[in-house]
Amino acid sequence: MTGLAHPDIDEIVLSDVLAALGDETRLAIVATLARNEHAAMTCSQFLEFGSKTALSYHFAKLREAGLISVRPEGTRRLISLRRADLDQRFPGLLDSLIACHAASPAGAEP
Amino acid sequence: MTGLAHPDIDEIVLSDVLAALGDETRLAIVATLARNEHAAMTCSQFLEFGSKTALSYHFAKLREAGLISVRPEGTRRLISLRRADLDQRFPGLLDSLIACHAASPAGAEP
Repeated sequence: MTGLAHPDIDEIVLSDVLAALGDETRLAIVATLARNEHAAMTCSQFLEFGSKTALSYHFAKLREAGLISVRPEGTRRLISLRRADLDQRFPGLLDSLIACHAASPAGAEP
Repeated sequence: MTGLAHPDIDEIVLSDVLAALGDETRLAIVATLARNEHAAMTCSQFLEFGSKTALSYHFAKLREAGLISVRPEGTRRLISLRRADLDQRFPGLLDSLIACHAASPAGAEP
């Protein structure tokens, strides 16, 4: 469970970020992470968005694009948004995307 | 050549927009359109980005996602960014994306 690859800040590519977010479920995962930035989250907190298998796939896509960090801790994986890295690399983009998502029907909080 | 489908404003979906822009070529096409908003452009002005066949595919993706309008005029197709529609649907997003693209190595003007 160790050694998951995360791109360095300067390896984060805009088109990869957008491709990773070009999916309702991954947008919802990122919006949820943004609402809970005070604490890392675990996979089990996202089960409303899909099965563990589906979530693993989505987390891998988001991690490889540079959007999230996935850190093994014992048998769990702690998931967090790479907010500082993204804000440094693409100033304003994450906030803009999250605001647009929140304003869309798919992004309305339950 | 008539009757190309364009989604209405309220049918434009954020994840579709991001998926369409999750590609370097389509990002570059949109950035070029944004720099030339005073006039509609034609396919032949984009040949630096790919063959006519490849461009047709990219324009279709962008049109179906609601990013561009493609209007037949005689034997040509006039292509323009749906700036007003996008700004209404997702305030600030297009400017944010274009700024991030312009600041990235892939988006540097020649």
